[in-house]
Amino acid sequence: MTTGEVEDYLKHSPGVILPVGSLEQHGPIGLIGTDALCAERIATLVGGTVDAIVAPTLCYTPAQFNMSFSGTVSVAAKVFLSYFEAIIKSFGEQGFQRVYVLNAHGANLAPMQAAMHDIYSEMGIKAPLLRIKSWWDFDEVNALRTELYGEREGLHATPSEVAITQYTDRIVKNELPSAYRAVSSQFIRDHSGDKHDPAVLHRAHFPDGQVGSDSALATPEHGELLLKAAAESVAKDYLAFVHA
Amino acid sequence: MTTGEVEDYLKHSPGVILPVGSLEQHGPIGLIGTDALCAERIATLVGGTVDAIVAPTLCYTPAQFNMSFSGTVSVAAKVFLSYFEAIIKSFGEQGFQRVYVLNAHGANLAPMQAAMHDIYSEMGIKAPLLRIKSWWDFDEVNALRTELYGEREGLHATPSEVAITQYTDRIVKNELPSAYRAVSSQFIRDHSGDKHDPAVLHRAHFPDGQVGSDSALATPEHGELLLKAAAESVAKDYLAFVHA
Amino acid sequence: MTTGEVEDYLKHSPGVILPVGSLEQHGPIGLIGTDALCAERIATLVGGTVDAIVAPTLCYTPAQFNMSFSGTVSVAAKVFLSYFEAIIKSFGEQGFQRVYVLNAHGANLAPMQAAMHDIYSEMGIKAPLLRIKSWWDFDEVNALRTELYGEREGLHATPSEVAITQYTDRIVKNELPSAYRAVSSQFIRDHSGDKHDPAVLHRAHFPDGQVGSDSALATPEHGELLLKAAAESVAKDYLAFVHA
Amino acid sequence: MTTGEVEDYLKHSPGVILPVGSLEQHGPIGLIGTDALCAERIATLVGGTVDAIVAPTLCYTPAQFNMSFSGTVSVAAKVFLSYFEAIIKSFGEQGFQRVYVLNAHGANLAPMQAAMHDIYSEMGIKAPLLRIKSWWDFDEVNALRTELYGEREGLHATPSEVAITQYTDRIVKNELPSAYRAVSSQFIRDHSGDKHDPAVLHRAHFPDGQVGSDSALATPEHGELLLKAAAESVAKDYLAFVHA
Amino acid sequence: MTTGEVEDYLKHSPGVILPVGSLEQHGPIGLIGTDALCAERIATLVGGTVDAIVAPTLCYTPAQFNMSFSGTVSVAAKVFLSYFEAIIKSFGEQGFQRVYVLNAHGANLAPMQAAMHDIYSEMGIKAPLLRIKSWWDFDEVNALRTELYGEREGLHATPSEVAITQYTDRIVKNELPSAYRAVSSQFIRDHSGDKHDPAVLHRAHFPDGQVGSDSALATPEHGELLLKAAAESVAKDYLAFVHA
Amino acid sequence: MTTGEVEDYLKHSPGVILPVGSLEQHGPIGLIGTDALCAERIATLVGGTVDAIVAPTLCYTPAQFNMSFSGTVSVAAKVFLSYFEAIIKSFGEQGFQRVYVLNAHGANLAPMQAAMHDIYSEMGIKAPLLRIKSWWDFDEVNALRTELYGEREGLHATPSEVAITQYTDRIVKNELPSAYRAVSSQFIRDHSGDKHDPAVLHRAHFPDGQVGSDSALATPEHGELLLKAAAESVAKDYLAFVHA
Repeated sequence: MTTGEVEDYLKHSPGVILPVGSLEQHGPIGLIGTDALCAERIATLVGGTVDAIVAPTLCYTPAQFNMSFSGTVSVAAKVFLSYFEAIIKSFGEQGFQRVYVLNAHGANLAPMQAAMHDIYSEMGIKAPLLRIKSWWDFDEVNALRTELYGEREGLHATPSEVAITQYTDRIVKNELPSAYRAVSSQFIRDHSGDKHDPAVLHRAHFPDGQVGSDSALATPEHGELLLKAAAESVAKDYLAFVHA
Repeated sequence: MTTGEVEDYLKHSPGVILPVGSLEQHGPIGLIGTDALCAERIATLVGGTVDAIVAPTLCYTPAQFNMSFSGTVSVAAKVFLSYFEAIIKSFGEQGFQRVYVLNAHGANLAPMQAAMHDIYSEMGIKAPLLRIKSWWDFDEVNALRTELYGEREGLHATPSEVAITQYTDRIVKNELPSAYRAVSSQFIRDHSGDKHDPAVLHRAHFPDGQVGSDSALATPEHGELLLKAAAESVAKDYLAFVHA
Repeated sequence: MTTGEVEDYLKHSPGVILPVGSLEQHGPIGLIGTDALCAERIATLVGGTVDAIVAPTLCYTPAQFNMSFSGTVSVAAKVFLSYFEAIIKSFGEQGFQRVYVLNAHGANLAPMQAAMHDIYSEMGIKAPLLRIKSWWDFDEVNALRTELYGEREGLHATPSEVAITQYTDRIVKNELPSAYRAVSSQFIRDHSGDKHDPAVLHRAHFPDGQVGSDSALATPEHGELLLKAAAESVAKDYLAFVHA
Repeated sequence: MTTGEVEDYLKHSPGVILPVGSLEQHGPIGLIGTDALCAERIATLVGGTVDAIVAPTLCYTPAQFNMSFSGTVSVAAKVFLSYFEAIIKSFGEQGFQRVYVLNAHGANLAPMQAAMHDIYSEMGIKAPLLRIKSWWDFDEVNALRTELYGEREGLHATPSEVAITQYTDRIVKNELPSAYRAVSSQFIRDHSGDKHDPAVLHRAHFPDGQVGSDSALATPEHGELLLKAAAESVAKDYLAFVHA
Repeated sequence: MTTGEVEDYLKHSPGVILPVGSLEQHGPIGLIGTDALCAERIATLVGGTVDAIVAPTLCYTPAQFNMSFSGTVSVAAKVFLSYFEAIIKSFGEQGFQRVYVLNAHGANLAPMQAAMHDIYSEMGIKAPLLRIKSWWDFDEVNALRTELYGEREGLHATPSEVAITQYTDRIVKNELPSAYRAVSSQFIRDHSGDKHDPAVLHRAHFPDGQVGSDSALATPEHGELLLKAAAESVAKDYLAFVHA
Repeated sequence: MTTGEVEDYLKHSPGVILPVGSLEQHGPIGLIGTDALCAERIATLVGGTVDAIVAPTLCYTPAQFNMSFSGTVSVAAKVFLSYFEAIIKSFGEQGFQRVYVLNAHGANLAPMQAAMHDIYSEMGIKAPLLRIKSWWDFDEVNALRTELYGEREGLHATPSEVAITQYTDRIVKNELPSAYRAVSSQFIRDHSGDKHDPAVLHRAHFPDGQVGSDSALATPEHGELLLKAAAESVAKDYLAFVHA
């Protein structure tokens, strides 16, 4: 879009969708950019449906626990916090008073929520309202994940995210070895937010990068279903947010 | 404890419990320091049970959304992140290789988790392992909260937290007016992490500071039950963590 | 690519290309993302030629002087500096010892060069070597720009950059009004690096966003020529750098 | 206090007392938290006398020179500066226009005074006025210290501070060995502010953590006298400050 | 000196003298650069006597309380802290293991001491030892100040500092009006470190910039005496420090 | 000048000249402070001609690539950026609405330009306008450099800068060995801004600190010519800037 087109857009809508992913290993067959692709592809589909601007995807984010795997790029959470904060404030200055963040990487949540606190604190009533959602935050999406893969969905390098990129980017690498290794539900809980450990331990625990997942189950057909389910849920949520 | 006593302690245990609260309004009858007291009192009870050092409570934390209420003190999330990070690193340098953070304020979670990322990233394998738990993260505790107050527990200035401080600090102010106002479950979801809004809006939405809660239901007797339930769950969780 | 494929790549090449653009107004017919697209499209073409990994494009960068135009997003130079620094260091930790930055936005240069200083200072001999080049840094490219547009190339929202995006992304908006306004060469010199002024003044000086340029001259055919000339020069330069 | 009570308090007083201590070794018989306890106990006594709010104690502060002793926790001076600054600003936003800092740890002074500069610089005439006093800044207190211990008071882990905690917290550990070692007055001068040295040297110079002090002389009775003398001086000083 | 000469110097001495001043009003007849000149001139005299390198003077420092007077330049204390810290660390990396800071501006002390803490904390045993002294820290100097001016020496824009610059730089402006105004000793105590107030109040309290001083008493002859007394004391102190 | 004199000055001129140099090796016969002296001496000469205030010289700046040579002092680019930014903002607050930066060290440019971006972004229309010029940015000066030394001028520790300090400070050390070593023009291009390398490599490439220069050609007579040519060009440029 040109600057003039953005000016026109802002006359009828205060909303923008910001996809946020990561660059990190996703097991033997998942792409480094899996999260970035998932966020971007879903956001693009949503943007078309709801007539929303989709901003360029944030790809470089915190991912220290995967730094023992080649290709992962990680920035400090506090650096990402400041960068994200600056971007959101700049959206706000331009009149985007509703910023919908579509996230695809768990470790982004903490710095983005911390940034949200500081944006509200510094800009006060002039701050753009933020809504931060991961594409798996919706019941319909999770039902589908469970239906397709059950407990083999796992926590990282899941067949769901791999399937989405297989569908959107036509890159299927299931021919590569990808051995499933179950992990206890206690272990999963410990690692889903409150007890990630340093990179070296992480690779020791999960040598091939899959965390309780069996990414070889992914197919482009599944990806299509997941993409559409996610886009539908996000679209509904975006509209409720932007018109609130 | 003296420095010598800490030296001895570290020979048999790498663990320390760090309570983290806040200073913010808790409705008409809750204390400004409710969160700090809850975290500190539960931690002290746990420390006695499991022979763990309980470090002094962190009270000054991010609470921008309550800044329209007198007595709330809020620090920027990024400032708290750096301060928390410095403290944990210093624990680590002293040999505390297991730091159990007992939290009592939702807005602390994001900056503490972001800090955890950076501690692991900077210290690597020398980093102390962190476990961040809020006292309401346990099934037993939540069952009790529901049993006692049902949906009138609400989200902020809940009768549970008020009850705990009534029991531990013998300060009962239920004679003050405290009118319950229900909020929709959608509203609760929006405000529990992903769509807090700036301070002025927050007070407009919740004029007396209660967010869907009815703190007047609190009694010291409830507080005793809650305190003990929380301490029991935390003690079990701490032992699993510190011996892992 | 998967993590395993990156691991293999690093066995035979230490190089990576990082495109860096911006999100800012580019006059009446240029896209907000013109710089990001130019950097990304040229880098992609180069990557195919020289077998180099092309990392995702950095789009959110300093652009304060265009903040009076809708759609521009600007982050503080010091925030971008830290973010860029973190990314380069992470590349270095992963074994990318030659990072070729392909730039398409003048205001990026200062913070990236400042970051380069600090990366070398902090990582010393372990730092990845950086080469920062803008796509217009090459004689062949500039000869073509002059041949095509003469002095109507101007300084910002130039027909060259618009032409490239017309070719690569098939978006032609020359039907929109785009009035050329010459500026003195002294004025151009003042604004090319050492005396940019604040956003309000900037828009007052350049009401339609063109700085001495006549972007309506752009055609997709020119874009193809420019893209290829730039990619050829960059490819040669990249190979010299990565094998040095 | 509840938020309503704070609101009422601010109608008649702009003052708050903020105790600031440290967590660091205090020799063979002094507690890690000696400074925090001294500041808190004196402040509490003062608060009761002069009807002032006493805020929670800041315990985690710069103490690098004692990091070779177990149990010391130290944060960087610049991190503490920012945290302290954020707290004071938040007090100011809430209407506390007179913040009296009661200090008990020498190394806190520099970062707090530096923060004061920046608070005044950034908030200007809206800044709360700060008064930073250590409990030993008063003639009456020092006369008593000299009377009780003469030159054996020393510089760190002094019998005075140990005595205060013995009285307030009923923890007497004089049975532990605590050998007095005199240091020259020149040495004391060098170490009282302008030439602290790194942690390893510090422990080499003062192997048991006492710096020219004989903490074994402490008794709870002395503690009571010192506590009361300090509280009386501080109360007078607070009233002069808050009503100025 | 050339780099080769510094290399030789470091073979026989680890010391360097760093003068630190300020740019701020010094009353009706004192120069903006009075502090910078005092520090530099004394340091130069000392350097000649004791064969020490004198580094260039730091002139831009925190001086917010004088910002209501034209010509004052002030940087935030936290920014000065980081800059000073970087300089000292760089001296340390070059082998200057004894850095003697000769100060001439009270507000520099807090950030420099805070920086010292962090330098020792981060560099540990490799940190250069710092000694921070103001030129008025010596008994001989103070005796002379009292002898010459008694209580009219005051706190800021003192005749002593003015006299030194009159002697060293041959700039005598006593013909300008400079009305003495006594301030109570209580007032002086409040303003000497622990209760500076914001710039606007400061000028309201001290309309002509003199704080209890009568700078018109200054003469170049006094300046010579003061300069020599200060240089003698500093030289002795430097030698004790550098050879310790 | 006194504060009153600055007040008067600001009534007729908004301009100030800020010289910025460095402390770094300048080959076998150049002084560590060559850049600082060049900037300061030229600025002083200009100041006298155009009736402009010349502020004290900034000497401590980024110079990591010369840290392998004794006597170089380097601060991180990001730290220098913040310090420079604070100084310029303070000039702006005092009414200096035109700040002319006279630079003499290439590595200063990036952080100063980045700071300029942020100053404009944060202060907006109230920001002082900045003009950043190096003394070699003028055609007349460069013609003279070429005339005097041809390609032996080189890139660092050039005879020109050495000559200026020989003239201004009467320090001539040409008797020291200074062997000229030509470098290819490609090499020079790589090192003039976009591919500086870490300090250890830098010294390996340029063992005696000269980068393609033959500083032994310097004479005080050349220095006088260069000083005057630079001052003349700068004076003209300053007047155009300050009256624009």
